[in-house]
Order: sequence, then structure tokens, then C-alpha cells
Amino acid sequence: MTLDAVLARIDADLPHALDRLMALMRIPSISTDPAHAADCAAAADWLAEDLRAIGFDAHPRPTPGHPMVMGHGGTAGPRLLFYGHYDVQPVDPLELWHRDPFDPAIEDTPRGRVIRGRGSSDDKGQLMTFVEACRAWKAVHGTLPARITMFFEGEEESGSPSLVPFLKENAADLDADIALICDTGLFAEGTPGIVTMLRGLLGEEITITGPAKDLHSGMYGGAAMNPIRVLARIIAALHDENGRVTVPGFYDGVPDLPEEVARQWQGLGFDAAGFLGEVGLSAPAGEKDRTPLEMIWSRPTCEVNGISGGYTGAGFKTVLPSKASAKISFRLVGQQDPLKIRESFRAMVRGMLPPDCSVDFHGHGASPAAQMAIGDPAFEKARTALSEEWPNPAAFIGCGGSIPVAGYFKDILGLDSMLIGFGKDDDAIHSPNEKYDVDSFHKGIRSWARILAALAA
Amino acid sequence: MTLDAVLARIDADLPHALDRLMALMRIPSISTDPAHAADCAAAADWLAEDLRAIGFDAHPRPTPGHPMVMGHGGTAGPRLLFYGHYDVQPVDPLELWHRDPFDPAIEDTPRGRVIRGRGSSDDKGQLMTFVEACRAWKAVHGTLPARITMFFEGEEESGSPSLVPFLKENAADLDADIALICDTGLFAEGTPGIVTMLRGLLGEEITITGPAKDLHSGMYGGAAMNPIRVLARIIAALHDENGRVTVPGFYDGVPDLPEEVARQWQGLGFDAAGFLGEVGLSAPAGEKDRTPLEMIWSRPTCEVNGISGGYTGAGFKTVLPSKASAKISFRLVGQQDPLKIRESFRAMVRGMLPPDCSVDFHGHGASPAAQMAIGDPAFEKARTALSEEWPNPAAFIGCGGSIPVAGYFKDILGLDSMLIGFGKDDDAIHSPNEKYDVDSFHKGIRSWARILAALAA
Repeated sequence: MTLDAVLARIDADLPHALDRLMALMRIPSISTDPAHAADCAAAADWLAEDLRAIGFDAHPRPTPGHPMVMGHGGTAGPRLLFYGHYDVQPVDPLELWHRDPFDPAIEDTPRGRVIRGRGSSDDKGQLMTFVEACRAWKAVHGTLPARITMFFEGEEESGSPSLVPFLKENAADLDADIALICDTGLFAEGTPGIVTMLRGLLGEEITITGPAKDLHSGMYGGAAMNPIRVLARIIAALHDENGRVTVPGFYDGVPDLPEEVARQWQGLGFDAAGFLGEVGLSAPAGEKDRTPLEMIWSRPTCEVNGISGGYTGAGFKTVLPSKASAKISFRLVGQQDPLKIRESFRAMVRGMLPPDCSVDFHGHGASPAAQMAIGDPAFEKARTALSEEWPNPAAFIGCGGSIPVAGYFKDILGLDSMLIGFGKDDDAIHSPNEKYDVDSFHKGIRSWARILAALAA
Repeated sequence: MTLDAVLARIDADLPHALDRLMALMRIPSISTDPAHAADCAAAADWLAEDLRAIGFDAHPRPTPGHPMVMGHGGTAGPRLLFYGHYDVQPVDPLELWHRDPFDPAIEDTPRGRVIRGRGSSDDKGQLMTFVEACRAWKAVHGTLPARITMFFEGEEESGSPSLVPFLKENAADLDADIALICDTGLFAEGTPGIVTMLRGLLGEEITITGPAKDLHSGMYGGAAMNPIRVLARIIAALHDENGRVTVPGFYDGVPDLPEEVARQWQGLGFDAAGFLGEVGLSAPAGEKDRTPLEMIWSRPTCEVNGISGGYTGAGFKTVLPSKASAKISFRLVGQQDPLKIRESFRAMVRGMLPPDCSVDFHGHGASPAAQMAIGDPAFEKARTALSEEWPNPAAFIGCGGSIPVAGYFKDILGLDSMLIGFGKDDDAIHSPNEKYDVDSFHKGIRSWARILAALAA
């Protein structure tokens, strides 16, 4: 049996696949930090070389930012575009890591074996599940079951500034029948999902300036405007008492959840108490008239991701600071227009400024939500293939995170995307001590082998 | 003439006095930062040695924190206790300094010659004005005009944790007729002041914890409580629309300004537009029914001195943070009780916490306001002496800053304090590029020589 030999090869080669993943994880490819530009380039080189080793015509491709990696392989079968990203999140606060984030290791934990380190789950480990499935197929059959374009980005964690122009300039090279994206999670332990609804993302950084320089609060306190107070008032005003976002026009284009989808989601038996309890919480904090699953999958949100101003070191300093700033992100759904919301948000902030204060805005990405056309038979083939690998049948699900590339693939390349991934809620992506279950990695590779076989059949 | 010879000596010795001050400024005695503990000890040693060089019996005196310096000199005349502090503020943000903050230099500026560097004005330069006056007197007369106890603290910028127990344990050694404190400013260019009203200070650091760890805002955003939002709501609620502080009971014990004082302050011709314009502001930001001079001298305030939470580095990170914290200070007047206000503030914060959030409090000092008994003839003698040195007559003034030691001298040692200093509003104390005018230093030394002569007469 064609597929069985490939699966057996995957099982036998797992130790080497883990070694390869950890070699890639040792490269600290933090895309948001200019000090790590050379590391991003090194990760792109590593991937291109690895793809060439399994027969792809693969190379790093320069951009104004970090390089893309593109590689073509296979001579017959459906045309598949596979996407992952090799850049990783920053690692602060470093003191909360139990080991060097870029010195990965396999650890035994009460919940099973995990690969510990930055990028294990987001997204180096996920990306390599597909690469390893291709490697095993090539080793067994000497060829690939499809015409595959590998496409790896190095700026996903920093708003993908080069992605849209690159897609436009290289549309012919990237043409395919369907896209596969591996940057999402399982629906639940033992239950894989294919994401068919993705929230969009709007990132805004605002800096409020009051006095021209830091002042002594004893000398000026009471008389001079404090930009932290101004910023706090703005942030406090972004939600009303019912948890709704107050930016004017924010809910324009937010669809009601279709009855049918609502019913299906109720049938999923989502464990809201467990989801929150995992991170020490008990009460859903979003809109009061929505379920937790709606809050994270189908409703738009506004979050403050960071805030700073004044003296934040040890001890106390009675400074009245000149500046205070915050990083604020909006998750978008349906037809919400990120650029309209950006303008409305900025107008709202300007309208709340007292005399003597000014504001600077810095935008960090603006992508709309995406809804996949699940009528394509590839979706049902992939769902069946996944269901054969995992204990429970696969589900079509929503996703709270934003994978802007899926929207760009649709708009620029005309491609639908199947978003399939094997991360877990407790992977601590974007947090200290990120991990990826060895089981996610292993069954993820096997899942892709099954999906490739199903799509090629 | 006794005094004239001393003043001439001061003028002649100014270059050496500046060298000595800069030697002291080269020691980075940042008291809030444990990494600088040895530097604080070195500054104390330097001062004790310098005092011994002019005949004081002076030594560093250990405390649980940084050492005090105490020295006794003189055999006849009034008993004076002189106080200054040798510790300095942290220097961040370092990139805004035009030179190494601990490599001081004399610079020519459009407004005259200045001593540039951390501690030049707050408080090493001010402290040394008194030491240099004593040095000149000793050089001319071979003795001092009074029985002087020098008392230098090394924890003023970190809430003076060791001060009260030290005063209690060493009350006999510190006994005097009156205290002199040099840690304040001129009232205006050419117009010295003796501060007779001081605001108290209450420092509070609060940390809000929501989720047990940092989360991915795509995965949890909307459902999990964000501690930055909670903190922003608390800070926004600390003032009402009219700029009044909302902590329950906050204004208990705040006196009305006496008619007579209000009239005197109106007569000072305070340039509110210039005071604010100096730092790029135009509108007083405090209580709407108060004058700017009341805001900074006689009214209590609440300021946020620092805030932090989530990702604050370059770029963007869609984290939903576990914790957010702020440093908040209250300036107190009249009979406001710092401990009662602390409890009321903490109860207010606890009352605003949503489910799943907790708060930790860390107190940083709690000192009441102080009002000097200006009936003591020493005050009038000092005012006359100051008026002879400066272009304009000296004034009895208020002070927005908090000099808790004056309250402790009164409560523990039974001493009134004369707070006389030569700093200027543009000295940038607690800010980058701190400076002290060479003229402030020079005329400051001469001022103390005149005051010593007047008090000894």
C-alpha cells in the first residue's frame, strides 16, 4: 500500500525529523527585532537547503524585509501551495523561561513528550510537519504525489509588510489549485479541525505626548497634564459596560452567526470552563450577550497588547513623564473594513485629547477577516483523511487568531486555503516556555501524508 | 570684615569647589538600584573624608540600607543641623542624555554656565554649597561660626526607609536649635525663597494580575480579562471631570488657603504661562477652580509616575498579558493622613477589580505635609541675609515637592527646619541632562556664608 509505506517511513524517521526541527529552532529568527535580521536570513537559507535535499528547486527570495523561501517540486498531480512561516515571536520576559528559548530539547512532562523552545509550535514545528511528509513520500516513492510549491515567510510575526507586494510580483510562480496553511491548532485533544473562518487583524500603536520633557511631579504635579492619565482614559473608553467596543462604526459589517453554524458549534461541546480554567480564569470577559466560543471565533475584539510610560524600573521615581504609549489590536470578522476602523479609532483618540497633548499613530498591519469556500471537494477529502489519523472526526471550525495570508491568497492569487494545524491551547505560543507536543508533530506529519494521498487520488 | 573675607575666599576658591563637586558627581550613587549599593557607600566615604579635611569629626554611619554620613564641627555659637542627600535619581532614558550622566562638565549655554550631570542640582550641588561655605569660613577664621552637625542621607530618592529609625536612635547626636535643609529651589530668577509649606508624599505601586500567564490575543482575546484594561479603568477613575481626586476621604484635612497667604501669593507675580510654557504646555491641568500656584503648592494631587504591561519592545506582539502595573503617587497637604489615604485608595482599587483579577500593593513611603513655625527669629535673620546676596528680596514660599525629612525633624527631634535652596525650574532634576547653574552654586555658597554670619551674630 502506497500510503502505509509512507506512514511507516514517517514513524521510523521521527528521531531524525525531531533533530532537523531542533536545528531550525536553534536559529533565533525574531523578525520584529532588527538585531536578528541575519538570523532570519540564516533560517531562510537553512530551509532552502533542506528543501533542495529532498528535490525541490528552492531558494531564498529577497524582499525589502526578511527573505521569503520558495521551492517547486513534483511533476504530476494537483497543484498545491503550502505556506508556513519561519520567523518567531520575541522571547521576553526571558526570566520566565525555564531554559534558553533557542536551545530546544525534548522534555518528558505529565502530559507527554514535548519539544520545548521558541518556534516549536508557532510555526517552525508546524511548517516542518508538511516538509517531513514530503520527505517521507520522496524517500519511499522517489517522487512527490502532487506538484507542490513551498512558500515560507519570515515576517508573519511582524505584520507581513513584504507579503502583498511579493504575492503580486510572483503570482505566476505561486499559482496553484488550492493553498494549504499550517499555522493553526487542533480543535480539542484528539480532534483536528479545518479552519474555515478567520478573524482579521488591525494593529495600532499610539503615543501620547504631554510636557516637552519628563518633569518632577513635585514641581509640576497638579498643574501639568500627565500623558499616562490621558492614555488610561482613552483605553478605559474603548469598551462600554457590556464589553462592547465603542469605536464608532466598529460593528459595521459584523454578521450574525448563521443558525446552522451556531447549532454546529453548540454540538462541539466546547469546554469554556476548561479553556479559561487552563489559564487561571473563570469568567468570560467579552460581550455579555455572547458565548465564549463566539467571543473567540466570530466576534470582533479590541485588546491592549502593551503599555508603557514613565519610570518602570525598581523602586520609585516621582517623574511626570513626557510620553506614554500603548499597542492596541483589533480582531475583525465578516465584512469589517480595517482601514475604516483605523480612521475611526484615530479620530476617536484625537477627540479625547485634552489641550497640550498630541498623539502619534503607527499602524501595524490591517487585514480583513476571511471565510473559506468549503464547497470545494478538497475540503471534504482533507476532512476524511484527517479523521482517519485522529481518534475523533475532524471538524470545520472558526479561529480567533488572524492568518492574514489566507485573505491575501484569496484576493491576489484567487486561491482558497485549507488551514490545518496541530497546535494545542497549552502550547504557550507568544509566551515563555513555548512547546509543541511530540505527538502533534508526529501525527501532524502523518496527517499531511494522508491528505496528500487523498488530494492526489 | 569677618564676612567679607569669607565671601572673597569663596569667590577665589570657586574653581576648586567646582572640581570637588564634580568628583562627588562621578560616583553613580543611584539609591533605588541595588546594583549601585557600593557606589552609594563610596559617595558616603567621599563626603566623610571631605568633612574631616575641614575639621569635622565625620564618619559614614551604617543603616539597613545605604549609610548616613554624620559629622560634628565648631565649638561655640548656635547649634545647627544641616541636611542634604548624596543619592541621586536613576538616569533612564539614557539615550536622551547628551553626555554620560556621571561624567560631569561645566558647559556654556545661552543662559549661562551650568554644571551638567546627574545630581548636579538634586542634591549633590546643593549639599556642597553648605559644605563649601563652612570650608571657606574655616580657611579664613580657623574655626566655624556655629556648632554644626552635618547629616547626609543616601536614600532620599528611594523613600528614606532607614531615616525614621536612624533619627530615633541618634536623636541625641542630632540635637540642635534649628535645622537647615538644602534641597529646594529659588522662587524665581534672582529671587530666593525660604520654604515654609511642604507637601507630603504617598507612593503606591499596584500590580493587576489577570490570566495566570501571558496569552495569545488571537486565541483568548475577547474571552479572557486583560489586566491593562483593568488598570486603565482604575487610573481613569482616580480623577473626576473637574480634576479632583476621587479616592474617598482624600480631601479630609485639606485646609483652605488663608486669605493673608492667598494675598501674598498673588503679590508674587507668579508667571504661570512662563512656568508651563517652559515645558511646552499652556493649560493648567489640575483642579478647575484653583490657580496654578495653588495646584503646585497648596493643593493635594495624584499622579501616575509609571505604567507597564505586555509587550513594549519594537514592533508588535499580539499578547494578552498576565500582569500590568503602575506607580502612583499622592502629594499631600495640611492634615491629610497618608496612612488613611493609602487604605482608602487600596479599598477603591479592590472594589474596581472584575472577577478573575487580583491586585498586589507595594507601598513606597508615606509622609504627611509640613508647615514651619516661622515665628522663630532665625527665619527673619535668614531672609535678611539672603536678600543681601540676591537681586530681589527673599520670600516665604510653598513647595510642591515633598521633603519628608522636615516633617521627621519636627516630629522626632522637635526641630523646625529652614528649607533654603538654589535650584531652578529648568534644572531638569529627575530628567535627562540635569544641570545646576554655576551661578546657583556660587551664590548658594555665598548665601550660606551670609546666613551663618547672621545666625551667629
